Amino acid sequence: MRGYKDSGVDVEKGERFVQRLLRRARRPGHDRLWTAAGGYAAVYPIGAERAIAVTTDGVGTKLLLAARTGQYQTIGIDLVAMCTNDLICVGARPVLFLDYFATGQLIDDVADRILEGIVAGCDQSGMILAGGETAEMPDMYDEDKFDLAGFALGELSRASLITGAEIESGNTIVGVASSGVHSNGLSLARKVLPEEKSVWDVLMIPTLIYVRPVLEIVEQFRDSLKGVAHITGGGWRNLFRLKERVGFSIQNPLPVLPVFDKIAVEVEQSEMYRTFNMGMGLCLIVSGEAERIVAVFADHGFEAREVGVVTDKAGELVIESAGIIIKE
Amino acid sequence: MRGYKDSGVDVEKGERFVQRLLRRARRPGHDRLWTAAGGYAAVYPIGAERAIAVTTDGVGTKLLLAARTGQYQTIGIDLVAMCTNDLICVGARPVLFLDYFATGQLIDDVADRILEGIVAGCDQSGMILAGGETAEMPDMYDEDKFDLAGFALGELSRASLITGAEIESGNTIVGVASSGVHSNGLSLARKVLPEEKSVWDVLMIPTLIYVRPVLEIVEQFRDSLKGVAHITGGGWRNLFRLKERVGFSIQNPLPVLPVFDKIAVEVEQSEMYRTFNMGMGLCLIVSGEAERIVAVFADHGFEAREVGVVTDKAGELVIESAGIIIKE
Repeated sequence: MRGYKDSGVDVEKGERFVQRLLRRARRPGHDRLWTAAGGYAAVYPIGAERAIAVTTDGVGTKLLLAARTGQYQTIGIDLVAMCTNDLICVGARPVLFLDYFATGQLIDDVADRILEGIVAGCDQSGMILAGGETAEMPDMYDEDKFDLAGFALGELSRASLITGAEIESGNTIVGVASSGVHSNGLSLARKVLPEEKSVWDVLMIPTLIYVRPVLEIVEQFRDSLKGVAHITGGGWRNLFRLKERVGFSIQNPLPVLPVFDKIAVEVEQSEMYRTFNMGMGLCLIVSGEAERIVAVFADHGFEAREVGVVTDKAGELVIESAGIIIKE
Repeated sequence: MRGYKDSGVDVEKGERFVQRLLRRARRPGHDRLWTAAGGYAAVYPIGAERAIAVTTDGVGTKLLLAARTGQYQTIGIDLVAMCTNDLICVGARPVLFLDYFATGQLIDDVADRILEGIVAGCDQSGMILAGGETAEMPDMYDEDKFDLAGFALGELSRASLITGAEIESGNTIVGVASSGVHSNGLSLARKVLPEEKSVWDVLMIPTLIYVRPVLEIVEQFRDSLKGVAHITGGGWRNLFRLKERVGFSIQNPLPVLPVFDKIAVEVEQSEMYRTFNMGMGLCLIVSGEAERIVAVFADHGFEAREVGVVTDKAGELVIESAGIIIKE
């Protein structure tokens, strides 16, 4: 059986680095930031009751697959999704996006198709593509290699801010379906799966953008909404980011998509849930109104359901359907 | 004689792509943005009289030199400088920074030293390092390769916004000294210069951060300040970004640093001025108060002087000292 580390990606090492970064970067000014759930975005107040939220992300080695398959037109959607799905976790409405595109040699047709995806992602998120940097770096990138990073900015009021502080045992977990692996765990998936076009097509399905339904829920059911977790690298462990001293129990998960079953032939189950979204791209922690919240997702064409509950078993994620317990 | 294109970087192709990007990205929402000089940052209003400015940039192939020389501790200063020096061009005060760090394999010691530079750059700019993304991408980057992108956000009032619209013939151009090549033209410089430690040390000198003196000038001499140009890729052509239908004449430039003379042995003079900062990292266009503005830079330890004037010869940059005319 293989783990994510075997694919050359050490998620926990990366997390430790980010912790060091935040510790060393901590300056008096950090006190000005509002505390937001899960560290999905930094929230900077611009008034007593208003703030902006900022976040940055990339699409990882899904880029390599884009280059390999020549499917450049959706990778920009992934880029935008990785950023805007983080913004909504703190209750922010996405407004501005900037991209960083670095490549060995700028090929107009490729760049245009990447841009097409970025524009589509911005449209889906209600964002303005406000600018970007295009860097041509021969010697840094081989001809067919490139990197993409994104930066998204959102607006929010103090009333819409999601801190996670109100999450408590007994709250309902609403899961929202993913479209596939999204933009995480690709280094492992590419290593494990056969190199076939049919496989690549499935891996390249763009990340879903959950902005519209979540904004509607923030507006209509703010009092019921206690937490939002974008399931990214680290898989379902992302739930632990929302609140300390609680646990999570998943009894009725969304269907595990076939692509995960194929990867799981080579990878241990608990490692699967620690690496991939396993069919659930977003989780909401709610206190009441779960049915109506599920209905909002359905209205927007997303599959959602009540998948479990928050427990008092601190730092423990029980996946009953798979017979797995994951510790924080 | 070699040009920048020979080093594999086609600046004008990159600029055309950005133009296409902005044209295609244009959506109704773009009307909400305030117009700011030179496109150095996007300016998004958050009230009738207040706005935030956002920009993104990288450090290009100076990264390769950082890896080659093992001098990782200052490349973060370059990253921050490339972003914050852009923010001040629109009159914004930098407040938040986020970094994107992508590498083949995360090496703690290297990452920590890069972070050290980012923190130092944020301190010099008065910014909070609010977050970042650290991506480990085996197969994308060779072990010693990495990329860095930065995102900076600033605040400004409508009164401090620099639009460039007031620039007119007869205004004074104040030049501020650079510390060397800064973070532009490295692909060409590396190709042309001998591969020697003494040369690399000079190329690795970090980009100057002009935030503090410029913010003081915005505060004290706002009425005199008509434009600010960060001299980056494209060299002195950056002046053309500030205002259409004017020209620029440089009679009394800052000293051309020795590193540029060495590069110029292989590169045509006009290409030098179209690619490098040639000793001038920042230009201010002022109407009156030039002496006192120069004095502010001196107070902050920067060398500055009156270097020329704005002319009515639209799209023409005359560098009298070098006997060169550069067209837009």
